[in-house]
Amino acid sequence: MNKSPHSLLGLSEKGASQSALASARPTAVDRWLKDVLSRRFDGSRVRFALWDEPELTASSRLPVTLRFGDRGALLGLMANPPLNFGDLYSTGRITLDGDLGVVLDEAYRNGGRHPKWARILARLRAKTPDLSDSRRNIHHHYDIGNEFYRLWLDQAALQYTCAYYADETMTLEQAQQAKMHHVCRKLQLKPGEQVVEAGGGWGGFALFMARHYGVRVRSFNISGEQIAWSREWARKEELEGQVEFVEDDYRNISGRCDVFVSVGMLEHVGTGNYPELGALINRVLTPEGRGLIHSIGRDRPQPLNPWITRRIFPGAYPPTLKEMMDIFESSDLSVLDVENLRLHYARTLEHWLQRYEENIDSVRSLFDEDFVRAWRLYLAGSNRAFEHGTLQLFQVVFSRSGMNAIPRTRAHIYTPVD
Amino acid sequence: MNKSPHSLLGLSEKGASQSALASARPTAVDRWLKDVLSRRFDGSRVRFALWDEPELTASSRLPVTLRFGDRGALLGLMANPPLNFGDLYSTGRITLDGDLGVVLDEAYRNGGRHPKWARILARLRAKTPDLSDSRRNIHHHYDIGNEFYRLWLDQAALQYTCAYYADETMTLEQAQQAKMHHVCRKLQLKPGEQVVEAGGGWGGFALFMARHYGVRVRSFNISGEQIAWSREWARKEELEGQVEFVEDDYRNISGRCDVFVSVGMLEHVGTGNYPELGALINRVLTPEGRGLIHSIGRDRPQPLNPWITRRIFPGAYPPTLKEMMDIFESSDLSVLDVENLRLHYARTLEHWLQRYEENIDSVRSLFDEDFVRAWRLYLAGSNRAFEHGTLQLFQVVFSRSGMNAIPRTRAHIYTPVD
Repeated sequence: MNKSPHSLLGLSEKGASQSALASARPTAVDRWLKDVLSRRFDGSRVRFALWDEPELTASSRLPVTLRFGDRGALLGLMANPPLNFGDLYSTGRITLDGDLGVVLDEAYRNGGRHPKWARILARLRAKTPDLSDSRRNIHHHYDIGNEFYRLWLDQAALQYTCAYYADETMTLEQAQQAKMHHVCRKLQLKPGEQVVEAGGGWGGFALFMARHYGVRVRSFNISGEQIAWSREWARKEELEGQVEFVEDDYRNISGRCDVFVSVGMLEHVGTGNYPELGALINRVLTPEGRGLIHSIGRDRPQPLNPWITRRIFPGAYPPTLKEMMDIFESSDLSVLDVENLRLHYARTLEHWLQRYEENIDSVRSLFDEDFVRAWRLYLAGSNRAFEHGTLQLFQVVFSRSGMNAIPRTRAHIYTPVD
Repeated sequence: MNKSPHSLLGLSEKGASQSALASARPTAVDRWLKDVLSRRFDGSRVRFALWDEPELTASSRLPVTLRFGDRGALLGLMANPPLNFGDLYSTGRITLDGDLGVVLDEAYRNGGRHPKWARILARLRAKTPDLSDSRRNIHHHYDIGNEFYRLWLDQAALQYTCAYYADETMTLEQAQQAKMHHVCRKLQLKPGEQVVEAGGGWGGFALFMARHYGVRVRSFNISGEQIAWSREWARKEELEGQVEFVEDDYRNISGRCDVFVSVGMLEHVGTGNYPELGALINRVLTPEGRGLIHSIGRDRPQPLNPWITRRIFPGAYPPTLKEMMDIFESSDLSVLDVENLRLHYARTLEHWLQRYEENIDSVRSLFDEDFVRAWRLYLAGSNRAFEHGTLQLFQVVFSRSGMNAIPRTRAHIYTPVD
């Protein structure tokens, strides 16, 4: 199971070859570049150090030192911070003396932007993934090993999506259960109803709906590892008769359902495919059907951080609400309710990162240090993105247009259950 | 006060001049046209009759007979039903033996559509009203007499917008109070905060916020009659110190506010002006500010019914959510919550229509029969539009992007108050 992190993340071996440069003494140009950077972060809690500078003493008033291991690291960060910081940090060519979160906070405040042409290109590339793009993208992220995800996700339902902290004191497990109830209550699931789930992860939510709400579920997923896990889980829980896990793309969903639900798949669909998704929902939903789409989103159109797109989530794109509306307004669907749970995702990621660090030795037994650092950065960076509001989390409830068997108010979502 | 309905609605005198035709006997062509129409509504609860046909006996199994008073009425309805039905009904050239609501129901199911070129033109015309367009449009609708609106709106707050039926048994008065509380709770108003209201009607909501939530309000409105009424009301309630009614366009809002609220004005803004509205909100809102926009909307882009646009609401356009997002995504704003209250507006209109009919003699003392019939049609037609889902009602809550002083859940909206 000790996979090479290079094959997993696609990082080059440059780090090692560049390390010879670390012995080269910084030039006047290197120092000038460092000064430019320092001025940009003037007044922040981050200080920069070149490879020849001594470790800071504890008396330094700045909490974090970002140290460049070589000239290439310095130049790389200057050239395109959103893209290159990730690789440089993962491969250890940038090291931190202090909290990664602080650096990310300051980066969100002062950091450079991905160049405009690169942002446009990134949006275009994520626009219309076809079936084989989707399979490759999903395999890259979700098939790196179930054991790995189990180390830091909630243990009860393996939810790799935003939890719902109905109150602030909830544990990760409680908040993930609350999230699933929240979605089911928004959908007003009734026993015996047929649910179709698009993108089912490890099957935790499908099994939850069957167990707690007595519905039948067909759950679609193209991650082979997740489907295998889901089926085994259904067998253990003796829910195979009620929940079917289908290894297929959402585009191949057929049949009819009372409820269409998708939690955390839309990020992989591509905006160009939204009208087609709307048409599909329209085709499978019964006349009194309803649905919910839960997705990471944006306040303004902007591609995902380029490093995350390259190393962690190829093909992913978080849409704005305006972009999401192409699903509904191109079909005969009516939006009933939208909730933005941004700060719940910040908290979820805080909990994930906490567990990740608690189980860091187990992660190291599975993967090498580059991988360990890359995923730390991904979790910490995503936490900060939700905290700073550069990412949103939308839950959209919908029905067919003109369908009147809908709840008049949303009070039922908030009525305490016995 | 007995104004001419012609000057109010802009109806032509054609009705009278055409009435000579009513004596002309129907030709074979007239009967053939009636058959075409009858076939289109085959199986429905509507029957058609020409001007020479006798009154139906009670034994007819069809509940409603739509009778054409002359050939022009028949041709007019065939040519463009969504546009011409209104005038023909208002002027009495089409009469009904039975319930208007039934005819409207069937029209929503089987009726012809406004021609495509006319729909495109209508959308373009409503796109960017300038200041003088807005003044003319608003004067046309809101300045026809405060006495008239008092006959059928709720008495406590004169709310000419969708009420909120927290439970189904609520009266109109209760539901309008509940609506105002619903909005205030979504906004989490705190005593002493500064609220700006764009489009304040007769001032009922501004005074409500001041009275119940202890906020200061500046309320903008370009309807002279409404502003006069509002100021008088504030004086009576001794709230002049807390609520200022400003006779000016929303585009001239200045200063700063903690809360921006607009209930039922966006329909008059025009989609082309949405980015400018977003920029304005962005300019006036404090860093921790938040806001709510409440507007009639659509599931798919489509202009308002052409007759309503011509006779009742010039320049009005109900946007889709996608169109509404131009307000927020072009500025530094983040959508937190969207609720669709479509069926609440259907119920509100049912209550308004009920009162309208109860007070029909008082309406007749103010206006002539064409006006009486036109407004009946407008209220009944709008009720059916919300019931059938061709109109929506969106409440959108927002804040600045990245603002973290927002409620974590929406439970506070649904917690019973003592």
